[in-house]
Amino acid sequence: MRNVRLILAYDGTDFHGWQRQPDKATIQGLMETAVKKITGQPTALCGSGRTDAGVHAANQVANFKTTCPIPCANLVRALNDILPAAVRVKEACDVPLDFHARYEAVSKTYRYRILLAPVASPFIARFVYHYPYPLDQNAMQRAARMFEGEHDFTSFAAAGDASEEDDNGLAHGTPPRGNTRRLFSSRLRWHGKSSVLIYEACGSGFLHHMVRNILGTLLEIGRGRMKPEDIPPILEARDRKLAGPTAPAQGLCLWKVNYRVRP
Amino acid sequence: MRNVRLILAYDGTDFHGWQRQPDKATIQGLMETAVKKITGQPTALCGSGRTDAGVHAANQVANFKTTCPIPCANLVRALNDILPAAVRVKEACDVPLDFHARYEAVSKTYRYRILLAPVASPFIARFVYHYPYPLDQNAMQRAARMFEGEHDFTSFAAAGDASEEDDNGLAHGTPPRGNTRRLFSSRLRWHGKSSVLIYEACGSGFLHHMVRNILGTLLEIGRGRMKPEDIPPILEARDRKLAGPTAPAQGLCLWKVNYRVRP
Repeated sequence: MRNVRLILAYDGTDFHGWQRQPDKATIQGLMETAVKKITGQPTALCGSGRTDAGVHAANQVANFKTTCPIPCANLVRALNDILPAAVRVKEACDVPLDFHARYEAVSKTYRYRILLAPVASPFIARFVYHYPYPLDQNAMQRAARMFEGEHDFTSFAAAGDASEEDDNGLAHGTPPRGNTRRLFSSRLRWHGKSSVLIYEACGSGFLHHMVRNILGTLLEIGRGRMKPEDIPPILEARDRKLAGPTAPAQGLCLWKVNYRVRP
Repeated sequence: MRNVRLILAYDGTDFHGWQRQPDKATIQGLMETAVKKITGQPTALCGSGRTDAGVHAANQVANFKTTCPIPCANLVRALNDILPAAVRVKEACDVPLDFHARYEAVSKTYRYRILLAPVASPFIARFVYHYPYPLDQNAMQRAARMFEGEHDFTSFAAAGDASEEDDNGLAHGTPPRGNTRRLFSSRLRWHGKSSVLIYEACGSGFLHHMVRNILGTLLEIGRGRMKPEDIPPILEARDRKLAGPTAPAQGLCLWKVNYRVRP
């Protein structure tokens, strides 16, 4: 038996998210079908976490068990040969049998792209949220930094949805951690040449819709409808209604998943 | 009566090219429908030239006549509001009544992108030709330069297709120029960071499939199956069969259309 780890990139535009669903195009469903076709074995593909419909990934990590002896380099080519161009296997490698893409992820980095140009180029339109309005970027940056550290992110989790975007580090037997997560960094970067404002957050885990809700709130602050100083009381209140709206999926990209280095 | 010039960008992937066709999605057909919806007047949209199915444009130029008084800035917004994200109006402006997007174009620039990376990122896959094979770029560059100057490009025109990709400068009464065109520049540029090789040609006009046939030939040279020195005799022979295959449409982009400055 082998355990194969895949690194995947996908354009989520035309998919109903990561998670397998009957009769719907999903990344997990598509990948499981492809792996079965190449290895000849039905297999469950375990992802580092779910991504929602329309959300992209530059480096999603997943693993599957198989007895198929095809070398990893050939697996990459064979899978890419039958996958649509919107989904690519960037890398495959053999990992220890007990590696688990979800339980062992220690942090994740998400990026959210906001395009401020008056007209959205069709060459990047699928991967940005087009928001051609004046924004107070200094206020947004100050607010973004306020999410750094450990917080209860209930106010920024999908309302009425207790499920988690991911369960990093939640191996069997780990006590539940509620809605508390640690963001190691939460920043904005301005790419003037392309008029793209990138929000990047690296954290121990993310609740469902958390990045998109943070973004929706930062945009309210950018427009002057909320203030950076509103963030701490909103976090404390643990009330989804106090934060801004959920920003659209298309600007969001799962950028990187980090794992502990094994001894 | 006004004459409005539009600058358009489009992702050609899901279109059957520029030219209006019954029951097929084309850029011209889509734009004419959109213009009619906004101005309330049926109108013929004149493009600087046709682009084939799957070919993109960063700055296609087109014009239409109308008596509709909507200011240009509002036209841009109104058209973009009803167009799909794959087609964008970048600019609209009032031009003299006798401006003609096709007859007055004096040169055009095309770009063709070849992605050499082993795996094609889904974020650029629609806009490149994925060609993950070793290429002799020096030989390709020497060959590319041999197309500069005035040549009869019959060997690089679509076989059995006398039509032209465009008719730059062919105003009424201008004598036909057969298959002779002048390339002001024909070069390759290597973007190592993204593993993209860009071919750029600026010329007085381009025959149907001309850039793609030049590319197909340059790739043969890059693989060592043809030599740069083969180009002059191929041009002289005026025989399509001697040149390389037609490279796929998806790597091609109409980059810029140049017009004479009016006195």
